[in-house]
This record gives sequence, C-alpha cells and structure tokens, in this order.
Amino acid sequence: MRSRGKVLKGKDGKLPFCAMGVSSVIHPKNPHIPTVHFNYRYFEIEEGDGNKQWWFGGGTDLTPVYVNKDDAFHFHNTLKEACNKHHSQYYPDFKKWCDRYFYIRHRGETRGIGGIFFDDLDSPSQEEAFNFVKSCARTVVPCYLPIVHKHLSDAFTDEEKDWQQVRRGRYVEFNLVYDRGVKFGLATPGSRIESILMSLPLTARWEYMHEPAKGTREAEMLEVLRNPKDWV
Amino acid sequence: MRSRGKVLKGKDGKLPFCAMGVSSVIHPKNPHIPTVHFNYRYFEIEEGDGNKQWWFGGGTDLTPVYVNKDDAFHFHNTLKEACNKHHSQYYPDFKKWCDRYFYIRHRGETRGIGGIFFDDLDSPSQEEAFNFVKSCARTVVPCYLPIVHKHLSDAFTDEEKDWQQVRRGRYVEFNLVYDRGVKFGLATPGSRIESILMSLPLTARWEYMHEPAKGTREAEMLEVLRNPKDWV
Repeated sequence: MRSRGKVLKGKDGKLPFCAMGVSSVIHPKNPHIPTVHFNYRYFEIEEGDGNKQWWFGGGTDLTPVYVNKDDAFHFHNTLKEACNKHHSQYYPDFKKWCDRYFYIRHRGETRGIGGIFFDDLDSPSQEEAFNFVKSCARTVVPCYLPIVHKHLSDAFTDEEKDWQQVRRGRYVEFNLVYDRGVKFGLATPGSRIESILMSLPLTARWEYMHEPAKGTREAEMLEVLRNPKDWV
Repeated sequence: MRSRGKVLKGKDGKLPFCAMGVSSVIHPKNPHIPTVHFNYRYFEIEEGDGNKQWWFGGGTDLTPVYVNKDDAFHFHNTLKEACNKHHSQYYPDFKKWCDRYFYIRHRGETRGIGGIFFDDLDSPSQEEAFNFVKSCARTVVPCYLPIVHKHLSDAFTDEEKDWQQVRRGRYVEFNLVYDRGVKFGLATPGSRIESILMSLPLTARWEYMHEPAKGTREAEMLEVLRNPKDWV
C-alpha cells in the first residue's frame, strides 16, 4: 500500500509487517449535510537485514450533494490550520493530492470537494509525523460537526433527495472501481468484506444520461467536481 | 477481449479489427420478476499476413430475487433446447462457463442463477457459429417473456422490495468489480460511459452485515447463489 515504489528487501521472500488504521464514512439522510470520510493509518515493515521501515498515511475529505461555499471554506480552513501547525507545505500539497486521488476517471469528476490526503509520510521524525497525524484525527470533529449542526433541520425536496442518490451512485463507482483500499481488500483472501464495503451508502441510484439543467444548483455542483477549486 | 490467450500477429504493431455486439439488461420493479441480461458479439481481426481471425461470444443469464424452480427450469430448458439444435455439449459447457463467469469472488456468490455464456467460438464454421448465435438471440424472448407475464401482477411487500435492492447492490458489485466488458469500457479513453453503465440498476442498497434468517426465502436464494444448481 505504498504510493511511491520503494524497494523493500525481504528475508527468504518474507517481509514481516504491522499495519493499523482507523476509517469512517458517514452518509447522512439529509441531502444538505455532506458525506464525510476519513482514514488514518500506520505501517511498519521489517526488512531482511533487521532494518525497520515505517510510514503514515490518510486524510479527511468531504462529499457534499450541493455546493455550500461557507461549509467548504470551514472544512478546508480547519484542515489547513491543523496542517500549518506542522508544516506550511502540508495543506497545499495534501489538498492537491486529495483532488488527484478521489478522481472518477471515467466521469472526469472528483468524488467530492476534497480535503487532505497523503501517504508514505516518514519525515521529519516518527514522533513529529505521529503528532501531525494526531492533529489530523483530532480535526475530524471540528471539521464536520458544525456543518451537521447547521443543516440538521434543513428541509429538502424529493428532487434534492434524488440528486443525492445519483451522487451516491458516483460514490459507489469511485469506491468499487478506483479506491486502492477497497481493491486491495476485495482481492485479499479471507479479508472481512463487510468492513471493506461499509463505506458504501445505504442506497444509490443510476439514471441513464443524467445531466442537470444549466443554471441549477445540481449543475453548479458538477462544475465544481469537474474543476476542483481552492476553497481557502 | 479473447478469453483464451491466442497470439495474434500484427503488422507494424497494428491489428485492424472490427467488433459488433448487442447487449441488454432489464431490471424490473416487481421483485418477483427476475433481472435478465444478454449479450451477443462478433470480433474480426486482420493479422499482419492478411490472415483473418474471427469469433463469436456472448450469453443469456437470469438474476432472480427469489428462487422459483419452475421459472429456472423454463429459462434453462429453453436455452438447452436452442443449444441442442447445434451441439449437445453447448448447453452443459456454456452453463458451467456462465456460473464461473458471473461469480462475485469476494462474496462467494454467483450474480444470479446463470444461463449460458461462451467466448472464442470459431468452429465448426463461420456459418454454423453464426447460426448458433442467431438461435441464442432468438431464444431471449421465449426464455424471459413467459416469466414476466406470469409474475406481472404478483403482489409484493416492502421487505421483498428491500431484498431486491440488496441483491441489486450485489449486481452493481459484480458489474463494477469483475465484469470484463465494463472494466474494458471504463479503461478505454473516449468510450461512451452511459452505454457501459446502463447495465446498472436504477436503485440499489447496501446493508451492513445483512444475512437472511434461516428457513426464509431470502436464505433459500443465497444458498442457490453459493452453490449453483442444475435446473434441467
């Protein structure tokens, strides 16, 4: 699961490893509350000569059904502030990495409005990298909860619910076709399928040739997914 | 898109080819009417020395939400009779091929109760192979329509509709994760995504740890999907 190819030297073809992570996805019923996903993970591999390799990876990203600039600013800015405490390049680099990673190639769309994503983080020191990942994890709640509170009682129409379902169809497409963790999990004999596929929404919808009319809020959302924006 | 590896000799790295096919999927609203899918296709490739290679492929398969032995017998027997007019090994071989192909590996389940599936059919002659494929195509309507007519007015409950939606989630999993045509299409730059993904259902559902209670009709369906049966 390294994103960059690093040659690891095994002993007798074996590479003892240790991996751990925490992952969560929330797909709210109300289409005015975005889907949130985060995953933070740690890998450790022992090479044949006893040398230990370790790295962190993960990220937090938001998938709204409609564009809300205030929400997008709040989400990205909270992530940026958490990143800035550790390195001024983290947010700009990991924001771009996130847009690149959560890309549905066959649609020419990102899955959502991004956030941060990184892998192979093994510098400046194990302690500093761990501190950064802890900051990221602690930022999930302040990133997301204010948005939930704000929209908890928003009324919604059947049309808005349908558009949410179409967007969730795209979420399924990304997760089953492109997501590295899902692909790796499904291909691993004996893996726990229910844990891997818990990221899928309860319900989703596919409509032939679905294209929102110009000037609608649905078209505004698509425009953002086709051309990722800087929110802060 | 050949299932067996056959080395083709190109000219200057080029292999002029011609491909055509017809494909259809019907996902009915009523959970007592099964989903049907068929695809028949023809390929022709010109090798560097002017030699022409050609072959047919395709099949017809049924994906019910509940087991109905009469329907399963009718569907498979109609296919068997059509196959038998051409070769007595076609039905038994292509029935097994179908069960093997429409297999959701990570679930240990087939997508449905199968039918027939074949590829690389280039014998005994082009005319005979074409006649066989024509028989298959002409058998789609007599295979499926009597089942539709029989269940058109069947009443259904919310629970039956929910189980249909869970089964459609598995249909999406097979098509996006394993189907060769879909994978090939999504990976081909400039391909028409709406045509490739029209095989997905209008709606689908994922429920964490969904497992039907013993002795229910839902459990009976799963049992058949986990252990493909001979219906004729």
